[in-house]
Amino acid sequence: MIQKVLESIESSKKIYLEQVKDWIRIPSISADPNYKEDVIRSANYVADDLRSSGFDVELITHEGGNPMVYAEWMKAPGKPTALIYGHYDVQPVDPLNEWKSEPFEPIEKNGNLYARGTADDKGQLFTHVKAVEAWLKTTGSLPINVKFIIEGEEESGGDSLYKYVKVAQEKLKCDFCVISDSSQFGPGQPAITYGLKGMAGVEFVLTGPSQDLHSGTFGGAVTNPGNALCKMIAALHDENRKITVPGFYDDVKDLDAWEREAFSKLGFSDKEFFESVGVTGGIGEKGYTPLERKWARPTCDINGITCGYQGVGSKTIIPARASAKVTFRLVPSQDPQKILEALKKYITSLCPEGIKIEFIDEFCAGPALINVDSEYMNAAVEAIKEGFGTKPVFIREGGSIPIVVSFQKYLGVDTLLMGWGQNDDNIHSPNEKFSIDAFYTGIKTSAILLDRCSKLK
Amino acid sequence: MIQKVLESIESSKKIYLEQVKDWIRIPSISADPNYKEDVIRSANYVADDLRSSGFDVELITHEGGNPMVYAEWMKAPGKPTALIYGHYDVQPVDPLNEWKSEPFEPIEKNGNLYARGTADDKGQLFTHVKAVEAWLKTTGSLPINVKFIIEGEEESGGDSLYKYVKVAQEKLKCDFCVISDSSQFGPGQPAITYGLKGMAGVEFVLTGPSQDLHSGTFGGAVTNPGNALCKMIAALHDENRKITVPGFYDDVKDLDAWEREAFSKLGFSDKEFFESVGVTGGIGEKGYTPLERKWARPTCDINGITCGYQGVGSKTIIPARASAKVTFRLVPSQDPQKILEALKKYITSLCPEGIKIEFIDEFCAGPALINVDSEYMNAAVEAIKEGFGTKPVFIREGGSIPIVVSFQKYLGVDTLLMGWGQNDDNIHSPNEKFSIDAFYTGIKTSAILLDRCSKLK
Repeated sequence: MIQKVLESIESSKKIYLEQVKDWIRIPSISADPNYKEDVIRSANYVADDLRSSGFDVELITHEGGNPMVYAEWMKAPGKPTALIYGHYDVQPVDPLNEWKSEPFEPIEKNGNLYARGTADDKGQLFTHVKAVEAWLKTTGSLPINVKFIIEGEEESGGDSLYKYVKVAQEKLKCDFCVISDSSQFGPGQPAITYGLKGMAGVEFVLTGPSQDLHSGTFGGAVTNPGNALCKMIAALHDENRKITVPGFYDDVKDLDAWEREAFSKLGFSDKEFFESVGVTGGIGEKGYTPLERKWARPTCDINGITCGYQGVGSKTIIPARASAKVTFRLVPSQDPQKILEALKKYITSLCPEGIKIEFIDEFCAGPALINVDSEYMNAAVEAIKEGFGTKPVFIREGGSIPIVVSFQKYLGVDTLLMGWGQNDDNIHSPNEKFSIDAFYTGIKTSAILLDRCSKLK
Repeated sequence: MIQKVLESIESSKKIYLEQVKDWIRIPSISADPNYKEDVIRSANYVADDLRSSGFDVELITHEGGNPMVYAEWMKAPGKPTALIYGHYDVQPVDPLNEWKSEPFEPIEKNGNLYARGTADDKGQLFTHVKAVEAWLKTTGSLPINVKFIIEGEEESGGDSLYKYVKVAQEKLKCDFCVISDSSQFGPGQPAITYGLKGMAGVEFVLTGPSQDLHSGTFGGAVTNPGNALCKMIAALHDENRKITVPGFYDDVKDLDAWEREAFSKLGFSDKEFFESVGVTGGIGEKGYTPLERKWARPTCDINGITCGYQGVGSKTIIPARASAKVTFRLVPSQDPQKILEALKKYITSLCPEGIKIEFIDEFCAGPALINVDSEYMNAAVEAIKEGFGTKPVFIREGGSIPIVVSFQKYLGVDTLLMGWGQNDDNIHSPNEKFSIDAFYTGIKTSAILLDRCSKLK
């Protein structure tokens, strides 16, 4: 059976590519209200595609927000149920002048498809949409039950789906989840991501004098919010680059021995890594390699600082205000809310006389660690091995995919993070791309995964 | 003689006020090229006024820039020569919507004249212009020789005059200088400023990765320029708020015992001071009072920081760059250039791996300390005592008037800093004002000063 499905996929490749191009041409930028109609068009595009393959499809709007596409094919009684997640919205395209081709007119070049949404996430998600189509077209059925939940607020920080998962546990019930919205370890080296960081973010806003003051007339007497901010931020790390917030490491699950060993065998080159971002090296937590710190150690980064005069030349003032956006990336089993409270308490304790502090724009996301020994994980490993011809490596990721935590928490299932992208796909930058080969191979791998999983129940 | 001059001033008060209003109506904003013609008109206004009083006047343009008004009356052989400095240009007026009246239409309210340039510096300078007019009109001569040098780049950072002083030592030769471009200690308490701070300013520009990076994917491995900047700035002060740049205090002339005693007797209220700027207190160098730190101890203030994302909400990036504008206020006998070199060396030594640092927009100005026991200083004290009816106190100032240093260095003379303003005159802010009484009393005091000085040779 699977052989026929794979043959069908092989013979339909060009059609699939043209279809995904059509989808990509819809500029479904969810962060920009001007694209509202396109966002809806994008939802309908994938909804119609799944419907014509034989899925029952509905558009669900939950407490406002963009509709979620829910689709199911549940005609394999006794067999496992997969829940496949993806998103039909895309990132904004600015700075437009840095694009070498039209952001929403996909072009093929050097084996890649270039356009906004190719890798993130339309191209990757479409591999599963086409895999089920190929199964249904070739055999009239799927080897397991399959549900899709495809949202339209992933790139705009919306929470429709998060709220929905809490109340739709029965509807979304499944044995495992699948997400293709991440990257391989490198070209020719497929990977499965089993660890994701969480986040705790906040902006500190420091207010000093009621207006900007002359730094000569008032300097030395009036506390400068800019200097105070720097002192407070500097105090977040000690000399070993450990984070100093009291209790910060209490719940940190350190790397297992097997992980450190596995990481060291990946052939990750510090030199190449640093060169790829234009530097010769970097500092970080003592006792860990750059890769370990990136993937599996908690971090604290300034995202932005606003303070005083920022124009050309000088203006010798004591600024009235200074603020900093700060994000902590957290690892299992840190609790973002607990970290945020400890942080605020600590920072407040550092606030000097003459400065008022407030905290705004807080956000949280939990970290996730996925069991690498489950039967579904084994099926995913086998499917990738067969589809890509190379055994995947297990990797972790410094980024966060908060829905994975929601699926763990409310549906009680792990997610198979099978990313077909590459680290240099420019997913939030100009000239986003996705390998056309990875697109085809992803469709086949998804078809194989369904087959493998059918043997598990 | 002086009595007649003072009577003439008294009877001409209203005329003087209307004249200074006419001058103030010229929007001579030197920082904005759109006002170039008005700047020239302003120069001519004061030039014509001095000419019609009987001065020899010329407009001097030195190596480009706005013309300087030079005027002299040198018909008192054997008598001292005063050089009176002032500036005919004014600050910009934005934010315009915070003005309660038209910036360039002077209005009288509560005994003050409100408009841009009233206190800084047209109103103050005009007191000397009218004092010499009253002398010449009443007696046909001046009791001493008087030169004026009035520049048009004080508010735009121009350096025509600085360059000119170096080459025009013979022309500007004098026994003492007079500047009225500062403030009294408070209402009813005239003052002479005898100490000015210097400055050493620079912007640190830190460059990390070649572009903004995802803080999840790269955090922990790539050095964050924002965090690095804060660490470096925080390291500029120790726990006692002493500045840590090596050698920073080597040349600092500490406060004399008489100064600390005199300061403590001024009745400066820390509480009122802090309340006036909207705070309850402030931190500063250990071992010194707020007033001592403001006036006579070196300081280090952040003027502005630019780093990463500054919009609404969050953007979880490692910024590619971070920069900070920093100004040190220096006291006698610190050398700004030496401090700047030591600072750059120190900051560079703190720069972590993965960050490149460069220094831009450097500027320097020397500190000044003026002998309070000179005969001309005594004359100024007596003149103020007679004119204002109150003995002036000696004060220092955290701001810088770099031309005072040039006069010391190239002309070999001290300056009498006889300020008629008040600290709340909003000189660089909306709703600038100047006391009309101080304007009249300033004219009389200037006339008395000339008389007193005529007895010194």
